[in-house]
Amino acid sequence: MPQNRTLTVDYGRTTDVLYVVGTQLTINLYRTALPSAKFFSVVCSDNVENNLSHITWPWWFDNYLPLKDDSVLLLSMSSASKEQGDGKVKIQLFDDKRKLMASAELLLTAIEISLDVDADRDGVVEKNNPNKASWKWGPEGHGAILLVNCDSDSGKRPDNEKTYVGTEEDLKDMSQMVLRTAGPKELPKGHTLKLHMSAHEAEAAQVFTKKQNGDYSLILASGKLSRGFSKYTKEMTFYVSGLKFADNDFSGLVRIHISLLQPGTPETPIFTDTVQFKMAPWIMTPNVQAPLKVFVCSSADSSSDNANFIDGMKKLVQKVGCELQIITREVNRGDRWIQDEMEFGYIQAPHKSFPVIFDSPRDRDLDNFPYNELMGPDFGYVTFKPPRDEVNSLESFGNLEVSPPVTVRGKSYPLGRIVIGGAFPFKTDGRNMSSATRNFLRAQVVQEPIVLFSDWLAVGHVDEFLSFVPAKDRKGFRLLLASPHAAYKLLQGLQETGHGQAKFFEDVPDVKVTVDELLTNETLHDENDYYQRCIDWNRDRLKNELDLDEDDIVDIPVLYKSAEFKTGKAAVSFYPDTVNMIVLGKNLGIAKPFGPKVDGKCVVEKEVVRLLEPLGLMCNFIDDFTFYHLNLGDVHCGSNVRRKAFNFKWWEMEM
Amino acid sequence: MPQNRTLTVDYGRTTDVLYVVGTQLTINLYRTALPSAKFFSVVCSDNVENNLSHITWPWWFDNYLPLKDDSVLLLSMSSASKEQGDGKVKIQLFDDKRKLMASAELLLTAIEISLDVDADRDGVVEKNNPNKASWKWGPEGHGAILLVNCDSDSGKRPDNEKTYVGTEEDLKDMSQMVLRTAGPKELPKGHTLKLHMSAHEAEAAQVFTKKQNGDYSLILASGKLSRGFSKYTKEMTFYVSGLKFADNDFSGLVRIHISLLQPGTPETPIFTDTVQFKMAPWIMTPNVQAPLKVFVCSSADSSSDNANFIDGMKKLVQKVGCELQIITREVNRGDRWIQDEMEFGYIQAPHKSFPVIFDSPRDRDLDNFPYNELMGPDFGYVTFKPPRDEVNSLESFGNLEVSPPVTVRGKSYPLGRIVIGGAFPFKTDGRNMSSATRNFLRAQVVQEPIVLFSDWLAVGHVDEFLSFVPAKDRKGFRLLLASPHAAYKLLQGLQETGHGQAKFFEDVPDVKVTVDELLTNETLHDENDYYQRCIDWNRDRLKNELDLDEDDIVDIPVLYKSAEFKTGKAAVSFYPDTVNMIVLGKNLGIAKPFGPKVDGKCVVEKEVVRLLEPLGLMCNFIDDFTFYHLNLGDVHCGSNVRRKAFNFKWWEMEM
Repeated sequence: MPQNRTLTVDYGRTTDVLYVVGTQLTINLYRTALPSAKFFSVVCSDNVENNLSHITWPWWFDNYLPLKDDSVLLLSMSSASKEQGDGKVKIQLFDDKRKLMASAELLLTAIEISLDVDADRDGVVEKNNPNKASWKWGPEGHGAILLVNCDSDSGKRPDNEKTYVGTEEDLKDMSQMVLRTAGPKELPKGHTLKLHMSAHEAEAAQVFTKKQNGDYSLILASGKLSRGFSKYTKEMTFYVSGLKFADNDFSGLVRIHISLLQPGTPETPIFTDTVQFKMAPWIMTPNVQAPLKVFVCSSADSSSDNANFIDGMKKLVQKVGCELQIITREVNRGDRWIQDEMEFGYIQAPHKSFPVIFDSPRDRDLDNFPYNELMGPDFGYVTFKPPRDEVNSLESFGNLEVSPPVTVRGKSYPLGRIVIGGAFPFKTDGRNMSSATRNFLRAQVVQEPIVLFSDWLAVGHVDEFLSFVPAKDRKGFRLLLASPHAAYKLLQGLQETGHGQAKFFEDVPDVKVTVDELLTNETLHDENDYYQRCIDWNRDRLKNELDLDEDDIVDIPVLYKSAEFKTGKAAVSFYPDTVNMIVLGKNLGIAKPFGPKVDGKCVVEKEVVRLLEPLGLMCNFIDDFTFYHLNLGDVHCGSNVRRKAFNFKWWEMEM
Repeated sequence: MPQNRTLTVDYGRTTDVLYVVGTQLTINLYRTALPSAKFFSVVCSDNVENNLSHITWPWWFDNYLPLKDDSVLLLSMSSASKEQGDGKVKIQLFDDKRKLMASAELLLTAIEISLDVDADRDGVVEKNNPNKASWKWGPEGHGAILLVNCDSDSGKRPDNEKTYVGTEEDLKDMSQMVLRTAGPKELPKGHTLKLHMSAHEAEAAQVFTKKQNGDYSLILASGKLSRGFSKYTKEMTFYVSGLKFADNDFSGLVRIHISLLQPGTPETPIFTDTVQFKMAPWIMTPNVQAPLKVFVCSSADSSSDNANFIDGMKKLVQKVGCELQIITREVNRGDRWIQDEMEFGYIQAPHKSFPVIFDSPRDRDLDNFPYNELMGPDFGYVTFKPPRDEVNSLESFGNLEVSPPVTVRGKSYPLGRIVIGGAFPFKTDGRNMSSATRNFLRAQVVQEPIVLFSDWLAVGHVDEFLSFVPAKDRKGFRLLLASPHAAYKLLQGLQETGHGQAKFFEDVPDVKVTVDELLTNETLHDENDYYQRCIDWNRDRLKNELDLDEDDIVDIPVLYKSAEFKTGKAAVSFYPDTVNMIVLGKNLGIAKPFGPKVDGKCVVEKEVVRLLEPLGLMCNFIDDFTFYHLNLGDVHCGSNVRRKAFNFKWWEMEM
C-alpha cells in the first residue's frame, strides 16, 4: 500500500512540493477553494499521474468539473525528477458562470528514497525489498540479521563496548544498511532526511558511517537517537553494530527509520521508510558437531600432578586430528575445571559468523581466561553478572549442555535443545541457575532449554549423569545415562561368576573395596536406588522433551555415593564417572574407572566398550583419578571443546 | 501423549506402586535382574494392561521369554483402583535351564488426578480438557481466563491487594480451579499432592481454598509457592485471583501445577498436571458504544460558575436516557477536567465481567475520585506511578481514545484500536505519555495502540483534534477531524456574502473579532496552515492504521491560535473546540462555538449541523465558554462517560 500524504492547495500561489516516488498525494480541492467556486479543472505535465476520486467518467475531456466537498485529486509520479519542480500541476477554479476565479500551481519534485538492508538473507543489501520492515522465520522467510559485535577486532575490549570503529575489519561484523536516493542533487530548502531509532532499540544497536576523511563516525546510539542530513549522495552506506543479545526485556528486534522532514516547528515527516533487524542468537554446539580445538589445564609446577591426564588427552586429540590448547598453570592459577568456566557457541548472519564464548558467572581462578585469552578478532565474548547470592555450583557450565538435532512430535529443533539442571520446580529452596542465565538461554529461542533435576548431586551438573554421543543409526545419536542399576548388575555378574574378591581402585591411591564388600553395603545400595530414581525422572523428561525411545538411550554403569558437605549429604560418583566424557567425533575420552579386574582387565571398561563400540565409537580411557576424580569431577569437567558450527542456518528454522 | 514413568523392578520383593490413570509405566526387566537370568514371564490381573516392546509374536502364550537388555514392559490401567494395590503384576526370572530364580510382585494402586479449569470458556469448569495447559485465540480457541481482581468487594482496598477473601461475593471475581481425584481414600504412606507455581507467576495470581470451618485460606501466593496435601477429597475447589495486568515484563500467562510426590529426599514427582490461565486485558469502549453514565464536575460555591454547562449536560443526558453524576465541588476540589483524570474500561471472563477505571497518573485535585468514589464491589481500579519527570500533560486521558471496530487490510480489530498522542518519534525532546502507561496499553494486545502527533498543541491531547461518532452507513462510524481550512472556508464564505462584519464571541465575555479582521490576520492564517499540516499528518496515519477512506472522515471547522506559555508558544483552540465533544448514542454534546451570526444564527453551529445531522446525529450545543474553553478545554475535557461493554468477547479475536 502506498504511503498517503494529504496536501493542501494554496489558491493564488505556486507551491513547491517535494514528492517521494511510491507514495500518493491526496488533495482535497474543495477545502481551500473560495466558497463561491463551483467548477474546477486540472492539467498535469506528462510525468504526473492523476486520478479524481468519485468521478468515473473520463473527466479530463471536460475542463469544467463541478466542485464538491468530496472533489479529491490523487497525484503520483513514477520516477525521480530530473530537475527541481519538473512535475507540474495546474488547478483552476471557476464560478457558477464558468469564469476563472483563481488558480494554483504545484511544482512537484520527485525523489526516490529507500533505506535498504539484506532482507533476503543472501549476504548482499538489495534494493527496496518489500519485506525489509518485518521478520519471518523459515526457508521462505525474510528479514535482516544483526550480530552482537562482541568480538574484539582491536584493543582489549569487546567491540560492542566501543563507540568507535577500531579497525576496518570490524565493519565486517556489522550489517550494512544503505540509504539510496535519486532525484535532483539538493533537497529543497529547509528539508532534511533524518535517520532515527527508539531509545529502547538504541540500547541494542548503534550505527556508524564513513566520514569524508575516511574515519568512521557514530551517528545513532543511546542518547543519540536521530541524525539529520540536509545533503545526500546517491548511496550512503551505514554500518549497524549489534550491542546485546535478546533477553527477557529485549525481543531481539531493532528497527531503524529514515524520515523526510518538511521545515516547520517542529519539522513534520512527509515520508518514512523503515528497516528491521533481528539479533542473531547465541548457538551452542552439541557433541555430534566435529571438534576443532580441545582445552585442558596443566597442573605443572603444582604439588599434585595431571601429567597422566594431559598425556591421555594429547594422544586422543592427535588421533582425532584437532587442536589442543594446554592452559598453563600461570593462567589457570590452579583452577582445573575449564568445562565449568565457559561454554563455546557461535553467532551467524548471512554476511558473517564467528564463535562466541559464554563466560560463566562462576568466577573462580580461570575467570580471566575467556576474556583475556579467547576473545579477540572474530572471537566474541558474552557474560552476565547475576546477584552474588544467586550464583551457586549449578551456574557452572558443566550444567549447560545441548542435545543433537531432534524432532519432537512434529516440531523440529535442527540445532538441538539446551539441557540444564536445577531443583524440582516446587522446591523453592533448591539450587538453580540464576534467572539471568536462564532468561538469556530461553531468549535465544532456537535451542529451547529443558530443565532437568540435578540438585540431587553435590556438584549438581547434568554432565555428571548424561552425555550425547554420535551414532551411525537411528536418530544419529544416543543419549548416555549414568545407571547405578547397570553398575550393580555388572558387579552381581562378577560375584555370580566367582570374582567377588576383585577390587576397585587397585592401581590408584584410594581405599580398595572388593565386589563382595560393595554388594553387602545396603546403605550404598539404597542410596543408589534413590539416585537411579532421580536419573529415571530425568530419563522420562528427556524422552518426552526430545521424543526419544528406549532404544535411543544407553545405560552406562556408574555408581554414586553419598558424601558429607557443609550443606548436608549429597551424591558424588563412587568411581570415576564414565558418562562424564569428552566426545571428539567417534572418539570418546572416558575417565578410567579403575574398577575390579578379571583376567587383568577392568570389567567396567569392558562393559562400557561393549555398550558403545557397536555404535561405531571408540573408547579411550584416560586416568583422571587423583587430580580430577578425587576433586569431584572427571574428564568432561576437566576439558572443553570448540566445535564446528552447524551447516543449518538458524533463520531457516520453522517457528 | 501419555506421561511416561520409568519404574524399577526389585526382584525378591513385593512393591507397592502408585499409578496415575492416563500415564504409562516403563519397566526395564533386565536392568535389575541377576546376570545369569535368561528367561522371564509376566502375569497381570485383568485390570492391568501390558505390552512388551520388541516382541511382536503373541508372547503371552509362552511363559519363558528370553531376557535381553531391551526387554521392556509397559503397564497401564484404565480406571481408578477400588482398593489399594488391586492391580497385580508378577514377574518371574528363570535361568538358562528354565529354573525359577527370582520373582517380583508389583501391587499397583491406580488413582485419577486432574487439575481442571474452564478451558472451553463456557463459564463452567469441565473435566480434564486436553487443552487446559495452553492458550489459543479465536472462536475455535481454548484456554482459561483470569480477571485482575481489582474491584473492592469489601473494605477500602482493591481485592488484588488483599491476601484474604473479604466476602463470598469476591469469589465470583476469581476463576475456579478444581482438583478432581478418584481412587482409594488415602494416598499410600509418604505420598503427597503438591500444588505449585513459579515465583514470577505468583506475582500475578494467588490461590485460595475453603477451610473446613468455612473460612478461606490463601494457599499459593508470592513467597508461598507450593502447598502439599497428604489427604485429598474427591473434588477440591480452588479460587484463583488475578493480581496484575499483562505488561512489559509479564506476558499475562499464569500456570499452576499439581504434582504427585513420592517420598524421598527430596521428594520426586511421579506425575504432574498443569493448567494455564490468561489474564483478561483491560478494554476501552469507543464512542459508538451505548452510554451508561455521564460524569461532570460542579463548580457550585466556586467564584466562577458552570451552571450553564451543568444545565446543558442535564438536558442532554435526559434526552439520551442515561445516568448523570455531578461530582460536587467538595469532591472535585476545583478540578473540572474529569476526562483527563481517568478512563473507563472493563475486564471480562466467561464467568464474570466488570468495569475497571484506569486512574491517570496526572494526579491533580480529582486524584482521589476514581479510588474513593468509583472503586467498589464489581468496579475495578488500576493505576501506575511513572517517575514524576515522565508525567506531563500528555499523560492525561483526554489523550487516550479508542476507535470503533475496524478491519485493516485483512486484520480485524473487533474492539477497535487505542489512539494516543505524542511527539514525532525522532523528536527526542518532545512530550510523550510515560513508558509505564504506553507499555501497559500495548501489553493489553487486543486494541493495539496508534500513536499520533499531538505535541503541537499546548495541552497536547488527541481529543483536541479528533472524535469518533456513530454513523448509520459505511463502516458504522465517522472520524471527525478538526479542520482549520474548513473554518477559513466558512469565514471566507461569510465575507463573500457580505457578512464580514459579523463577530465572534458576541454573547460571551471575550474580545470580539469580526470575520474581516480575522481573515486579514496573516499570522493567524499561517499558523493555522501549519496546524492543518499537523492534523493532515495524523489524518494520513489514521487512514493507514484504521484503513479509512476520505469518505470515512468529516472535516469539522475548528480554528487554533498560538498562545504564549512558560515553555514557549503552542496551539490552543480559537473558539470553543467543536470536535472536543461528548458522544452519547446519536446525540452529540458540542461546545457552543459563539461564532459569527447571520440572521441571528451562529454559522459555525449551522455548518457543524449541516455536516453531522445527515449521518443521523443530533447536535446539542452546550455553553462551556467561561469555565472550560477559557481554561483550555471544552465539553469532552469536562466530561466522562461509562459505556456498555462490547458484545464481542475479546478471547474470540483472531491474533
